[in-house]
Amino acid sequence: MTSDIRVNAQRLWDSLETMAQIGATEKGGVCRLALTDLDKEGRDLMSQWCEAEGLERSIDVMGNMFFHRKGRSPDIQAVGIGSHLDTQPTGGKYDGVYGVLSALEVVRTLNDHNIDTEIPVEIVVWTNEEGARFAPAMLGSGVFAEVFDVEYGHSRSDLEGKTVGDELSRIGYLGDLQPGDHGFSAFFEAHIEQGPILENEDKLIGVVTSVQGVNWYDVCVRGEETHAGPMPMTMRKDAMECASRMLPEVFAIAARYAPHARATVGQFGVVPGSRNTVPSRVEFSVDLRHPSRPIFDQMDHDLKALVERFDHESKVNVGVDHFWSSPPVEFDANCIQSVTNSAKICGYDYIDIVSGAGHDSVYISKIAPVSMIFIPCDDGVSHAEIENTSIEAAEAGANVLLHTVLQNSFD
Amino acid sequence: MTSDIRVNAQRLWDSLETMAQIGATEKGGVCRLALTDLDKEGRDLMSQWCEAEGLERSIDVMGNMFFHRKGRSPDIQAVGIGSHLDTQPTGGKYDGVYGVLSALEVVRTLNDHNIDTEIPVEIVVWTNEEGARFAPAMLGSGVFAEVFDVEYGHSRSDLEGKTVGDELSRIGYLGDLQPGDHGFSAFFEAHIEQGPILENEDKLIGVVTSVQGVNWYDVCVRGEETHAGPMPMTMRKDAMECASRMLPEVFAIAARYAPHARATVGQFGVVPGSRNTVPSRVEFSVDLRHPSRPIFDQMDHDLKALVERFDHESKVNVGVDHFWSSPPVEFDANCIQSVTNSAKICGYDYIDIVSGAGHDSVYISKIAPVSMIFIPCDDGVSHAEIENTSIEAAEAGANVLLHTVLQNSFD
Repeated sequence: MTSDIRVNAQRLWDSLETMAQIGATEKGGVCRLALTDLDKEGRDLMSQWCEAEGLERSIDVMGNMFFHRKGRSPDIQAVGIGSHLDTQPTGGKYDGVYGVLSALEVVRTLNDHNIDTEIPVEIVVWTNEEGARFAPAMLGSGVFAEVFDVEYGHSRSDLEGKTVGDELSRIGYLGDLQPGDHGFSAFFEAHIEQGPILENEDKLIGVVTSVQGVNWYDVCVRGEETHAGPMPMTMRKDAMECASRMLPEVFAIAARYAPHARATVGQFGVVPGSRNTVPSRVEFSVDLRHPSRPIFDQMDHDLKALVERFDHESKVNVGVDHFWSSPPVEFDANCIQSVTNSAKICGYDYIDIVSGAGHDSVYISKIAPVSMIFIPCDDGVSHAEIENTSIEAAEAGANVLLHTVLQNSFD
Repeated sequence: MTSDIRVNAQRLWDSLETMAQIGATEKGGVCRLALTDLDKEGRDLMSQWCEAEGLERSIDVMGNMFFHRKGRSPDIQAVGIGSHLDTQPTGGKYDGVYGVLSALEVVRTLNDHNIDTEIPVEIVVWTNEEGARFAPAMLGSGVFAEVFDVEYGHSRSDLEGKTVGDELSRIGYLGDLQPGDHGFSAFFEAHIEQGPILENEDKLIGVVTSVQGVNWYDVCVRGEETHAGPMPMTMRKDAMECASRMLPEVFAIAARYAPHARATVGQFGVVPGSRNTVPSRVEFSVDLRHPSRPIFDQMDHDLKALVERFDHESKVNVGVDHFWSSPPVEFDANCIQSVTNSAKICGYDYIDIVSGAGHDSVYISKIAPVSMIFIPCDDGVSHAEIENTSIEAAEAGANVLLHTVLQNSFD
């Protein structure tokens, strides 16, 4: 009975610990930014592990990696499982990595039991999910799903001006596969929740039904620099003073559409950046999120109206660049049902959940049926070195992924 | 009659233009940060010019340069005149440089007329007045006046960790003179106003009677980083959200003590600085100024109370490092009178004025009688590439400096 099969929790946990040593930080987190030498090291290790399991590797033009486990019907598109290996600058051990290594653990378990699936199974590692080094986030899966073209993907650059294309070549992960060359019969991504809901509700499994929409903006305030002393306050064109009045109103947008709305200002730059010079330019990022399309759109409208009002009313110039948008997404009903069934088979407490974070699965849902499996993480914290989960949660998510694969890899 | 003597305005203007080529920026400003290769180039040029005038150079342990013009009574302490050659990162052509080159023009004029003063005259170039590369500002004059000790001065470091002592050695301007080795019978500094008052009042000369007090702080907000999506707003410990509520209150301190109070937030750092991560740490600088001691102290109290209140009321931790203070200063009555007399002798419209900026003269006033001479600058703008003044204003200030020197260099 395949319904009795379970993953090897200790093996999964050991793999997570081993991978976490690549880019390990002093505070117990991981810094493995996309397309750095450390990213290459992580990719190399993953490739060795998959080769040991008899998987065949292919790489596409964005460096997305596919590790193929043959099915009895090679012509049917594979069931894709996976996530990403890149991290935030001060990231944790599990965000993304858990989805990749639980997929590896599923394949290892299938191999342990010599299970020949009808439909091939493919582990996928997406490039630059975090967007921490190269904006936008989910770039590899976005190009794969043809949301962005390859040229756009290759030309994204980091703060030093290095491009994705050049860095892919440099680390030896620029492949040949083109977007559209192959798809998936279904795709499943296991992930830590990155929020506090499962922990608060004491559930091991979240069946992800939908994903919050995300809008990314850069707001720029331009004034005039002058000495901090002589110029009277009323005669200044102080970019910082204007920004200081805008910021609370940005956070007020999230408060207005509580409890599901989110507003984050994570980047903030000042020019010239001298303590005794009134700033001529301030730039800050805004990240707005909501799971409902009408409110998502209203928040976008509110931010743009806020910028327009400050531009109109202030002595400085204010502008906004709305350079990326990922609208709210509903996952595939059959895939959601598969995950629910698997949680039941394994006997885990589960709830339906909305993802607050963007994921590669959002883009893949444009070209294949998709759902996700969430496991709890401590205090809902992620994108942080103290990000943590338990071996029990990791085991539960991998078992649900295993049974989801089993349900979807036989005709 | 020495009262008929005037400086050579075109020669002064040409020298300003020549010096401005060292570190010239595309937008017409100057970036000549303290103790960089460009600073060395500026010092070398100034040294050549002074040597051509027969001045004898000495250098102290802080790299402060003294160009000595002999008097008939060599044992009397010199009349010091000068300012600084370092600039802000996006600074102008006149801040500091004008005080140095108008002093040079005074000496050139004395030489033109073969005037042997009774008391020696010394041009001074102070090190790191701006504080842009090494905090605090006015470091060279501060050590000279024994406000700071030499060890403190040498150990100040820039953002890359390079120290003042090492950089002085590197560019060859680490001298032997110790603080206290010599003083001044009086010291005068010509400077652009860096404010709009002279221009608004249509005056060529500001007789500087006092200087605003300046307090420098670093405020640090510590929260907890987490992913921008899943964590509900009410459960976050968002350092940026807290800072966003503090900033308007910092500016409100200046509004409360209008019109003379100033508040500036010129530096602002975010950790980890990723657009989809709630910041764990925000640090920003605060520069508070007022010319009256009681209000100056009240503003200091208000800022500290503000920090304490936010630390107490927020879920994040807020602290403040009050690392530098320059209280309001009254200049010497006789020196002020000399400047006033000189403006009268030259026939310029003048007013008494309070300096809104800190100056090397503030520290020198602790060990010698001091006053300053202000000339207007366009729109009151300084610490900016568009900083500008006129040849007429430059000429007027240099003439007033010349006659102030004449009044003070004979018994």
